[in-house]
Amino acid sequence: MSKKFDFIAIGRAAIDLNAVEYNRPMEETHTFSKYVGGSPANIAIGAAKLGMKVGFIGKLSEDQHGHYIKSYLEDSNVDTGGVVFDKDGHKSGLAFTEIRSPEECSILMYRDEVADLFLTPEEVSEEYLKNTEALVVSGTALAQSPSREAILKAVALAKDNDIKIIFELDYRPYTWKNPEEVAVYYSLVARESSVVIGTRDEFDMMENLKDGNDHASADYLFNYEPELVIIKHGVKGSYAFEKNGKTHRGYAYKSDVLKTFGAGDSYAAAFITALSHGKPVDEALKYGSASAAIVVSKHSSSDAMPNLEEIEALIEKQSESYGK
Amino acid sequence: MSKKFDFIAIGRAAIDLNAVEYNRPMEETHTFSKYVGGSPANIAIGAAKLGMKVGFIGKLSEDQHGHYIKSYLEDSNVDTGGVVFDKDGHKSGLAFTEIRSPEECSILMYRDEVADLFLTPEEVSEEYLKNTEALVVSGTALAQSPSREAILKAVALAKDNDIKIIFELDYRPYTWKNPEEVAVYYSLVARESSVVIGTRDEFDMMENLKDGNDHASADYLFNYEPELVIIKHGVKGSYAFEKNGKTHRGYAYKSDVLKTFGAGDSYAAAFITALSHGKPVDEALKYGSASAAIVVSKHSSSDAMPNLEEIEALIEKQSESYGK
Amino acid sequence: MSKKFDFIAIGRAAIDLNAVEYNRPMEETHTFSKYVGGSPANIAIGAAKLGMKVGFIGKLSEDQHGHYIKSYLEDSNVDTGGVVFDKDGHKSGLAFTEIRSPEECSILMYRDEVADLFLTPEEVSEEYLKNTEALVVSGTALAQSPSREAILKAVALAKDNDIKIIFELDYRPYTWKNPEEVAVYYSLVARESSVVIGTRDEFDMMENLKDGNDHASADYLFNYEPELVIIKHGVKGSYAFEKNGKTHRGYAYKSDVLKTFGAGDSYAAAFITALSHGKPVDEALKYGSASAAIVVSKHSSSDAMPNLEEIEALIEKQSESYGK
Amino acid sequence: MSKKFDFIAIGRAAIDLNAVEYNRPMEETHTFSKYVGGSPANIAIGAAKLGMKVGFIGKLSEDQHGHYIKSYLEDSNVDTGGVVFDKDGHKSGLAFTEIRSPEECSILMYRDEVADLFLTPEEVSEEYLKNTEALVVSGTALAQSPSREAILKAVALAKDNDIKIIFELDYRPYTWKNPEEVAVYYSLVARESSVVIGTRDEFDMMENLKDGNDHASADYLFNYEPELVIIKHGVKGSYAFEKNGKTHRGYAYKSDVLKTFGAGDSYAAAFITALSHGKPVDEALKYGSASAAIVVSKHSSSDAMPNLEEIEALIEKQSESYGK
Repeated sequence: MSKKFDFIAIGRAAIDLNAVEYNRPMEETHTFSKYVGGSPANIAIGAAKLGMKVGFIGKLSEDQHGHYIKSYLEDSNVDTGGVVFDKDGHKSGLAFTEIRSPEECSILMYRDEVADLFLTPEEVSEEYLKNTEALVVSGTALAQSPSREAILKAVALAKDNDIKIIFELDYRPYTWKNPEEVAVYYSLVARESSVVIGTRDEFDMMENLKDGNDHASADYLFNYEPELVIIKHGVKGSYAFEKNGKTHRGYAYKSDVLKTFGAGDSYAAAFITALSHGKPVDEALKYGSASAAIVVSKHSSSDAMPNLEEIEALIEKQSESYGK
Repeated sequence: MSKKFDFIAIGRAAIDLNAVEYNRPMEETHTFSKYVGGSPANIAIGAAKLGMKVGFIGKLSEDQHGHYIKSYLEDSNVDTGGVVFDKDGHKSGLAFTEIRSPEECSILMYRDEVADLFLTPEEVSEEYLKNTEALVVSGTALAQSPSREAILKAVALAKDNDIKIIFELDYRPYTWKNPEEVAVYYSLVARESSVVIGTRDEFDMMENLKDGNDHASADYLFNYEPELVIIKHGVKGSYAFEKNGKTHRGYAYKSDVLKTFGAGDSYAAAFITALSHGKPVDEALKYGSASAAIVVSKHSSSDAMPNLEEIEALIEKQSESYGK
Repeated sequence: MSKKFDFIAIGRAAIDLNAVEYNRPMEETHTFSKYVGGSPANIAIGAAKLGMKVGFIGKLSEDQHGHYIKSYLEDSNVDTGGVVFDKDGHKSGLAFTEIRSPEECSILMYRDEVADLFLTPEEVSEEYLKNTEALVVSGTALAQSPSREAILKAVALAKDNDIKIIFELDYRPYTWKNPEEVAVYYSLVARESSVVIGTRDEFDMMENLKDGNDHASADYLFNYEPELVIIKHGVKGSYAFEKNGKTHRGYAYKSDVLKTFGAGDSYAAAFITALSHGKPVDEALKYGSASAAIVVSKHSSSDAMPNLEEIEALIEKQSESYGK
Repeated sequence: MSKKFDFIAIGRAAIDLNAVEYNRPMEETHTFSKYVGGSPANIAIGAAKLGMKVGFIGKLSEDQHGHYIKSYLEDSNVDTGGVVFDKDGHKSGLAFTEIRSPEECSILMYRDEVADLFLTPEEVSEEYLKNTEALVVSGTALAQSPSREAILKAVALAKDNDIKIIFELDYRPYTWKNPEEVAVYYSLVARESSVVIGTRDEFDMMENLKDGNDHASADYLFNYEPELVIIKHGVKGSYAFEKNGKTHRGYAYKSDVLKTFGAGDSYAAAFITALSHGKPVDEALKYGSASAAIVVSKHSSSDAMPNLEEIEALIEKQSESYGK
């Protein structure tokens, strides 16, 4: 009998404030639209839109922004049974975006003392986790205590209960104290995960080196738990390494790009969904790329998540040009 | 020969994000408009609009928000010779407002580790201060180090150079560690000031008691430097105490209220301007009240600051009903 | 070919200031004698005295106390190739002891911002670690960053290099922020260790419960790496559980007790040494107990560590009364 | 009618651990003797020994060291009505001394998170202060919050109650965050004090400059409250400036120096006592110098404080060589 959730995502849910006026610097932007943001929240919302049964563990600000996030998750069919509110006045993280041009999108982050980083180990419930096949961990949640320990506890509980761990590296430099800490905690969780997904830069942070080698990265992890390692190289596409030795390359689909943010989260949502539906790895890579191509052409990250039909239509439409 | 500035304001300049949609909770507000905010910035902008020669000392975030604030101050004829940018990544303070109804306006503040509180003593220049007749100190800037020490240094330099100090208590509970600190630093600066302006609640914070007595508050301060003490009682109006024993009462003007925030800053801007123009205290109280009545009927705090003609027109128009 | 070190201990080395005058409260003690202290330093010194080849990784204060500790380690034949000095002014931890009576010995600790807790991951050298058969980890070093990450890195390097981990729980309440953190990091390292040693109270801290069961504690760990689990019950003796199902009980030897501190470290030093010499587990338990019995009869923890002859003489002498 | 206390000292009381073995570096010192230390505690003890009626305000560790300090103060006839114990586990400050030679005495300080710096404003009682003629403020107590605010409150209460403030600059670099803070708070308290005592280096810290001029320092302060300014130049002696324009020079007495620490505190104790007894300033300088000459020839700072007869005997004995 299958479990209640295909996966539970753990980590931050935050607020995006996207420039309403395009093609100008933020100094000249006077109006901002509010959306839910944050990598694991976006992945959860995106996968729910694709029909997955998804739960969420995270801490929200006890204020108007936090209440909005919770409502939005629920309206998106993401179960909020693992969501708690911060009682100490910590605020939701914010991301102000400016959209100067498709190539130039800068983000102004408010991440000091944000509520999501105050999730405590005791707020991670083994009962809730027992309902899931997989746990999607976002690396940013490892950046500070007590969220760091909450994640480590969730990982330990996942091991104790034979729950598969999917680790999205999701490295953001702010909030981390130094690169050594990144390397220690990223490699600790990666060694315990079944699937590890990240950009080449993120793998370099995990290995505390520059210009690392994809094969070496995957081979190191295959000494431990991982069975599937995805390393992304932006517009050049991505590589998937399987423990059995198989390697796959994924390519980017063409898109009418409005802005670049949101691409990684939509990629992860669709890739994980396709894998969960039993698609082979090379097919799942297409789902990830197609989903990313759709989101970068739209204004938000969460609201813009495509449904299965849109993704499959894009894959079908660009089947001839894919990889060329 | 008169000095370059009528006054220099010192303290925070921040960002207000005001709900574009009215009469609803913030959870249901999807768009926000950006303005400059922060009490001493508002006072400086308001007074400049009334024709005063005004300078500003403060620290801004080195990002899109900080650059916007600096431009706005300059466009408002506030001299930014005392403005510095934060080199350590601290952000601008934010205030999200919701406007449920004229009586219900809540504000969601982002004030953790904000740039304005990182102004250092060495960033306060004696040369710049020597250009001014008066220094307007905002109490919030005393809440944390190093801004606290920057203010104490500015106060000491003002004493050394016979510059009159006007102290706007401007108490905001967030950012202060405990009431004892408020009392220590507020009374320290108040004892050195010529003019002290605040609400009854703010005087109570300064005196670390409840339900204090206006006369006792003024008499205590008259043992030290203060010559004029203004204690505000909201819609009931305000009282002005002079060291020579005279007492004046000010009344509120009628207004078509949209929201209540911004009232105190516009009051201070107009009151200080009137005093500086040589108006008697009871007349200056009218300018303060009229300015406040205008700002509460409009959408922002800074942009909505009235000019002299508007204030004087209101005083003229409501001259019969004033105080009744 | 055997490696250079039988084991490397990692963690704190500190200063003990032991009351020179006995049988009185510390308020009335006027003179203190200085010794090296700190659990992993004591274990290293104790084992070196028993003929083991021992290295040490830790951070010392760059002052008279730190220099003294380094010299003492070297004079005790502990290799200090992994020792670094703190460049930021952090001090050595201190433990003032009073000896009111054999039953009443209180310790006054100075552990705020101490140098040993500032060991960084980059100060843990893989080259140095490659020289050892085993790594002895002291739980206290997990209490704070960056020492915590230094330990986690050492543990990861040990796994990568097939180095056996011996985990001495060594729980001290000061310096830990809350019990949840203890549980997270203790269980994380315990699951990766071959040998886990602690008191019942310490296992309870690791499991975040009260009055835990020895068999359950051992069985849980046997799902992961551990092969040998030692749980100590003070004067009632200790239990050793082997992954193969065997269980052993150790007993306390009689002693002319002067003070109780130092017992655990001398126990660990002798137990690890005996195991390393190929003694069976039940025999190694006797070495631990005998060593502890000797140290509690003497004035210091480090200086008082016995040699093999003393331990074996005690075992021989009390062979008839042992366990009765 | 005279008040209960000639003066109340406010600030730290700590533990000195003086090397029992002389003429060697601390690394080779194995035994330490315990004494009460800390500048304001030493001044209080020293003055009480000279017959002054003295009170003390400060915070002690709730442990064996704190209890010892309180008993010692009481045994020295210092009233401890203003002493409170820290309830949050903060420890007493420590000073380990080594005595390599009369010229080389280094001190190893433990001053992180020490109890004395946690004195709060609400622990400073106006009722207790009303009992005193004068308040002796030690500059080190201004280094950190909340002790800083406790001192500022005590200074404000002293002004409100016409209590004379004597400010001993007592600058110690550790515990201060940066020189700008020193300058801000030192000059703030100095401007409110009647008597300011410090070394030339300490006045330079207060003025945030190098190689300042004694006359300029005194003249600046005479714009505010101070009536007497003492600037010490080590073995070259000291200068006393009076607001009425008189200047006095003090000289050092010959002494059989064992170590240099403790000199400043004993100087202050005797100088303040002599002034309080109505001695003229030039005579009081002799008392200060004589007291310092005696303490530097002995092993401790507090225990070694001389009585009046010893001081006057030395002044008498060296009357011919004084100043030559």
